[in-house]
Amino acid sequence: MLNEISIKQGEERFQVRRLEISDKSKGFIELLQQLSICDFVSDEEFRARFQELKSHGDDHVICVIEDEQSGKIIATGSVFVEKKFLRNCGKVGHIEDVVVDSSARGLKLGQKIVSSLTDHARSVGCYKVILDCSIENKGFYEKCGFQHKSIQMARYFD
Amino acid sequence: MLNEISIKQGEERFQVRRLEISDKSKGFIELLQQLSICDFVSDEEFRARFQELKSHGDDHVICVIEDEQSGKIIATGSVFVEKKFLRNCGKVGHIEDVVVDSSARGLKLGQKIVSSLTDHARSVGCYKVILDCSIENKGFYEKCGFQHKSIQMARYFD
Repeated sequence: MLNEISIKQGEERFQVRRLEISDKSKGFIELLQQLSICDFVSDEEFRARFQELKSHGDDHVICVIEDEQSGKIIATGSVFVEKKFLRNCGKVGHIEDVVVDSSARGLKLGQKIVSSLTDHARSVGCYKVILDCSIENKGFYEKCGFQHKSIQMARYFD
Repeated sequence: MLNEISIKQGEERFQVRRLEISDKSKGFIELLQQLSICDFVSDEEFRARFQELKSHGDDHVICVIEDEQSGKIIATGSVFVEKKFLRNCGKVGHIEDVVVDSSARGLKLGQKIVSSLTDHARSVGCYKVILDCSIENKGFYEKCGFQHKSIQMARYFD
């Protein structure tokens, strides 16, 4: 019974929801900084990018988990939908920028985020969902139902 | 002199341009079939997807090379622009669906397409351009200036 309550409290504490504009003040950018470079984003820049992405509706979704106790964003990930001619005008979900706060590892929040993004891609009719990751994260994504398919190549501009 | 003329004719014969709606009747879908499954796309479906992608302007570009002699589309590739919060609201170009007709290999048309897509990504302000490929195509993309960065994971839906 206590366990049931704990689980329920845990579930309520770590709900996946869509990014909101007020999440900038809840540590969203600082969380992204744990993943890659993100020096400074002004409120104005944040608002403009937020509105731009929001205008794509279900074709570009950013999920977050807010810790209801601390009021901080502790996990995030995004998925956008690419529309092709291939596969009979098929659609592909691309998962990007998945990160869990270093203080919140081990709570399976990463899996919650990826599962939510995957479900979204499926619900809008994608025939597959793909992502790029380091070889170190292969095991994590295998647990999420993904398989290693190919390699990622990149070219950086100066 | 003759060489110069040949090269010029070759360049004119293999111009990279954006996909046009009339390219469906020039073998565009048959070309994609050399890459992956694309059973049947009706004129109506093609038109709808074409208009949808065109509405994204420079954020989703499909390039083709038409053989001016045969009137057939013999090479294609696409790039779309992902907008992030990361990298100070940065942008990433994603290259997809690069294919050269089996009868036109060895003419460096693949490099022409990739170079054109890469130039486009750079011109619209992307900080990098990325793509997924099989290990067999690693050398080709290295010649195009790309480096092996990570692995691609995929999950297919039934």
